[in-house]
Amino acid sequence: MLLHEDRLFPAEPALRSMARSLYDSVRNLPIVSPHGHTQAAWFARNEPFPNPAMLFVQPDHYVYRMLYSQGVSMESLEIGEQTMKNPRGVWRLFAANYHLFRGTPTRMWLDFAFQELFGFEERLCERNADAYFDRISECLTTEAFLPRALYERFGIEVLATTDSPLDSLEDHAAIRDSGWSGRIVPTFRPDSVVDPEFDGFAARIRELGEKTNEDTGAWKGYLAALRKSRLRFRALGCKATDHGHPTAQTADLSEREAEALYISIVMGKANAAQQEMFRAQMLTEMAKMSLEDGLVMQIHPGSVRNHNRLVYERFGRDTGADIPRATNYVDALRPLLDRVGNEPDLTIILFTLDESAYSRELAPLAGHYPCLRLGPPWWFYDSPEGMMRFRELVTETAGFYNTVGFNDDTRAFLSIPARHDVARRVDCSYLARLVADHRLDEDEAFELAQELTCGLVKKAYRL
Amino acid sequence: MLLHEDRLFPAEPALRSMARSLYDSVRNLPIVSPHGHTQAAWFARNEPFPNPAMLFVQPDHYVYRMLYSQGVSMESLEIGEQTMKNPRGVWRLFAANYHLFRGTPTRMWLDFAFQELFGFEERLCERNADAYFDRISECLTTEAFLPRALYERFGIEVLATTDSPLDSLEDHAAIRDSGWSGRIVPTFRPDSVVDPEFDGFAARIRELGEKTNEDTGAWKGYLAALRKSRLRFRALGCKATDHGHPTAQTADLSEREAEALYISIVMGKANAAQQEMFRAQMLTEMAKMSLEDGLVMQIHPGSVRNHNRLVYERFGRDTGADIPRATNYVDALRPLLDRVGNEPDLTIILFTLDESAYSRELAPLAGHYPCLRLGPPWWFYDSPEGMMRFRELVTETAGFYNTVGFNDDTRAFLSIPARHDVARRVDCSYLARLVADHRLDEDEAFELAQELTCGLVKKAYRL
Amino acid sequence: MLLHEDRLFPAEPALRSMARSLYDSVRNLPIVSPHGHTQAAWFARNEPFPNPAMLFVQPDHYVYRMLYSQGVSMESLEIGEQTMKNPRGVWRLFAANYHLFRGTPTRMWLDFAFQELFGFEERLCERNADAYFDRISECLTTEAFLPRALYERFGIEVLATTDSPLDSLEDHAAIRDSGWSGRIVPTFRPDSVVDPEFDGFAARIRELGEKTNEDTGAWKGYLAALRKSRLRFRALGCKATDHGHPTAQTADLSEREAEALYISIVMGKANAAQQEMFRAQMLTEMAKMSLEDGLVMQIHPGSVRNHNRLVYERFGRDTGADIPRATNYVDALRPLLDRVGNEPDLTIILFTLDESAYSRELAPLAGHYPCLRLGPPWWFYDSPEGMMRFRELVTETAGFYNTVGFNDDTRAFLSIPARHDVARRVDCSYLARLVADHRLDEDEAFELAQELTCGLVKKAYRL
Repeated sequence: MLLHEDRLFPAEPALRSMARSLYDSVRNLPIVSPHGHTQAAWFARNEPFPNPAMLFVQPDHYVYRMLYSQGVSMESLEIGEQTMKNPRGVWRLFAANYHLFRGTPTRMWLDFAFQELFGFEERLCERNADAYFDRISECLTTEAFLPRALYERFGIEVLATTDSPLDSLEDHAAIRDSGWSGRIVPTFRPDSVVDPEFDGFAARIRELGEKTNEDTGAWKGYLAALRKSRLRFRALGCKATDHGHPTAQTADLSEREAEALYISIVMGKANAAQQEMFRAQMLTEMAKMSLEDGLVMQIHPGSVRNHNRLVYERFGRDTGADIPRATNYVDALRPLLDRVGNEPDLTIILFTLDESAYSRELAPLAGHYPCLRLGPPWWFYDSPEGMMRFRELVTETAGFYNTVGFNDDTRAFLSIPARHDVARRVDCSYLARLVADHRLDEDEAFELAQELTCGLVKKAYRL
Repeated sequence: MLLHEDRLFPAEPALRSMARSLYDSVRNLPIVSPHGHTQAAWFARNEPFPNPAMLFVQPDHYVYRMLYSQGVSMESLEIGEQTMKNPRGVWRLFAANYHLFRGTPTRMWLDFAFQELFGFEERLCERNADAYFDRISECLTTEAFLPRALYERFGIEVLATTDSPLDSLEDHAAIRDSGWSGRIVPTFRPDSVVDPEFDGFAARIRELGEKTNEDTGAWKGYLAALRKSRLRFRALGCKATDHGHPTAQTADLSEREAEALYISIVMGKANAAQQEMFRAQMLTEMAKMSLEDGLVMQIHPGSVRNHNRLVYERFGRDTGADIPRATNYVDALRPLLDRVGNEPDLTIILFTLDESAYSRELAPLAGHYPCLRLGPPWWFYDSPEGMMRFRELVTETAGFYNTVGFNDDTRAFLSIPARHDVARRVDCSYLARLVADHRLDEDEAFELAQELTCGLVKKAYRL
Repeated sequence: MLLHEDRLFPAEPALRSMARSLYDSVRNLPIVSPHGHTQAAWFARNEPFPNPAMLFVQPDHYVYRMLYSQGVSMESLEIGEQTMKNPRGVWRLFAANYHLFRGTPTRMWLDFAFQELFGFEERLCERNADAYFDRISECLTTEAFLPRALYERFGIEVLATTDSPLDSLEDHAAIRDSGWSGRIVPTFRPDSVVDPEFDGFAARIRELGEKTNEDTGAWKGYLAALRKSRLRFRALGCKATDHGHPTAQTADLSEREAEALYISIVMGKANAAQQEMFRAQMLTEMAKMSLEDGLVMQIHPGSVRNHNRLVYERFGRDTGADIPRATNYVDALRPLLDRVGNEPDLTIILFTLDESAYSRELAPLAGHYPCLRLGPPWWFYDSPEGMMRFRELVTETAGFYNTVGFNDDTRAFLSIPARHDVARRVDCSYLARLVADHRLDEDEAFELAQELTCGLVKKAYRL
């Protein structure tokens, strides 16, 4: 078998037994997925996934960045191609390099899907690559593997996508109108119309104005356009906004300063510092709008996007070459917190790619400000060791109740059950240790297992 | 029972057994508390503590910051009030939210006091809040719960308070004159007369001059005033100074430069950089005075004080809104170390709120410079995970002998035995692992358990 | 006995058993040492080591920095003396302070040599200092303790030294010409002719020109001189270059800019920023040369060298007073990576003294760029906890195959077997945990144990 029943539980028998009991109490709870990158179109159209390589390799930068790091070219994996010329060839290349994923969460997610969805019992390798390819291909043609069927099979209760304010959300509307019982909700991610360094920013701002019938050439019109867009999202079930900025910098300019800054941005005259200031100001503007419309705010700072110039030029964004940078929160968030930090009705969920900030800045901030919560370990840290470090570094200062459960944050739909399963197992292992160390009573651990799996997620995201 | 005999020991039976043996050898050693924030007045006056809420909730920012972070208002907890209107109501609010402390050291400290001092066996909750309140209230009226009785019951050998150079130390003098056998010593903490950004700095400088009969309008008079103040502290048993600066920056200006800087400080003309430079210079001045008078120097850098403007304006300093910032030591300490770093008779104890500095800067510095020692995990890291990380990150480079045992650093008198107990348990667990891994012999581990509990503390603080 | 068979294996019985099995499969593999600081002269001359103090204390800054930190003077240890006046006295001082090394890797390395090479069974202490001194002294006079005999006894397959481009490499040539079967290869470490802040930089540049018959007064001649030097190293088996810079900063200047910068460097007119820029540019130049001649590139950034002014003035470089500083990689490496980062034939091995960069920057970079690999834990982190943190922080993002096995990096020849033994034990303990957690199959763990011990080292260093 690829998966062991006791995987990720601590080896010590008493700990393992406690972890298993806790896990048994949450393993079958529904999946609540408040943040991720699946496509609403999949559920609107409900068409079969094309082939194993386009399902598992091509869309998943976790997978191909590792292959690329070991000398497998992007071209040979047909990254960025609309249709694949040789999916079986790509699959074989992937299979022959499957050992590269040893010790990584990607390996666990893949094995989970291979066994639980496709019934494989033997580890993927060069020799069985074709057998894998054939069986998966066959499955994908069946009803049971259509997106909606999988959604139901996975036990998903709600699934949030991540969408541009310029998105028509027609897929979300189509899902709603279809009468299907699945709950797919959009998330308002305005980076492309808020970050002046985003490719095609000026054109997007104009498009935003046209779509909302507001004058985005002016500061007030721009804010009104964003406000309207948020309401359009809310009408389709949106509960949250999301902000992927290079830093966590915020600002609280006067009305006049903000207006002047916006003019120079729109005129394309802003330098790098002004662009950063604008992003900073926009986080505070978004927080103020959240106070009006109740959308929860997520901040994902600290990624240096498109670090590899060559790969960016040839293959575009989100191709495995985003690298974290040290991220300051204590000074950066101060202007925003000075403005709205004590508002009890505001929820801001902070994420990080800089683990040194967990115990130093994030837990102390979340352990004090009423509006702040800590998001789960993100991206490279969506992993067993990453999750354990998060709990160990955060809990003693922020407690459990300033955290918000798990995000799968994935583009790989089939990895969703595996990712939630990993989170449940690691959280239960952590709780088991607290029980074994007599830092927590058993009844509390069982209650917390529920909270970490569903309760805190629903509360934080207002689901 | 609230407390298990084996709490905080590792779950693996052989490790647990070794940890327990080590702990049994130190559990009854006296408490040596060389740094903290209890009030000498308690022991001078020896009056009963007023009520459970004023004992456990109101003075303890560890407690109310967590409640505040989850939407409980400071007003409802009567934070900052001289007397409480509704202590029972505050207590009920605290009890109803006791689950927020799950997984935190605060929970352990509280449970320890609840069981060991007041005999509770059931976890505090909304239902038993009144029973708790009543029993604690009753106890507080008895002789056995007066400050001096508790001091003796806790087995404290020496307890250091932290005091401003402007403090009359009359409470310390009163204790000395009372003939009571307890040893309460002051610590010289000059931040308020050394940090130009401190509220009311100019007035304090004048007051310092008046109290010492020195001209603090001039650099030489200012230094003389500080020197006199230190001697006044020494006469009442003071062994150490303490310095809570925003950074660890030090400087070594020429006499002339220092004088000119002081003038602009006193005239209120210094900008932020000059204020920082002045604090930096003063750390070196303090080190030079320590070479003269033998006071041990403690540096607690890296806290952004009063981060929450609103809370600061309404409730003042030290109200749970101090947030750590990344802290550089390697460059910052260089001027001071260039000047006095090789002096064998000087002891400087470094603390940090930036755990990333443990293995990167602090252990290498302490593992080389004769004057440097590492203070125990501070504040947010005065916790089981924090202590374990400290040992794991520091020992391999600095060894045990460049550390100085435990500080309880508390304003909550009743938490002192619990805090020392946690430190002893975690240190013994760490030592047990080294023995089990065959990195340390058993006889060495027993010797080290003694050193970490008492030996190194007394040596470092010259007690 | 000083050493336990199961040292460093986890205490939990199932884990320990798995770790032991894995270790048994690699314990007798040859030692491949691709980076270190032993002296070729030892093997060229094959003369006896002089005495215990000059073997274990005087050359090892790991040892004497700890003694110095606790007040033992450098003079009393005769640090920096060509010959020792009182080696027995130095040894006694060391023995009397042996407890300072409790919990450090130095202690493990020393105990290993004491037992395995000299047959001691009792821990070194003041009482047995003379017995130790006498037995070691006696051994050192025998054939079996000559450098070549020890090399063979240690099972070393290849041992790299670290050498200046100005080094004649006559010792390496002598070894080759001697017909001895040992493989001692040089490493090209150009810091002293690349870093304008290096003592005597200008004279060295001239010397480089004379030795290579190139005009190092000009940029092109300087590059040609370096190119020729690299080829001279290659002819004696050199496989790698090594670069110890204060930061990881790289640059990619135009030909004209680089030339102008070099002129101001040579003329001694460059300020600190230009000196940093020059070092930065030289890393990129070295990478370009590596593309030509196939030498693997090692970057060891982030050490503040000679931090203790007094010790540097009296005792010189490499005397235990180098302290790490926070190190940025994500921005610093970008110019170099923009230029050559996607070259599949280039290998750059990154090291760090800033562990916070492992998961934040280094693993994501190595998990993407084809030319990047991660070096093993370096210096202060060449330790059980350091190695375990490295695997835990790096593997989930970079996998195992972007790492390069172990470096002993030592000046202490006798510590080599102990250091490799520690690395094998810790890696096997880590693998054992992955197996016990069911994150890795047993057959994979055994394969990885081989790879981490020999396979990846040889592949990365092209040995």
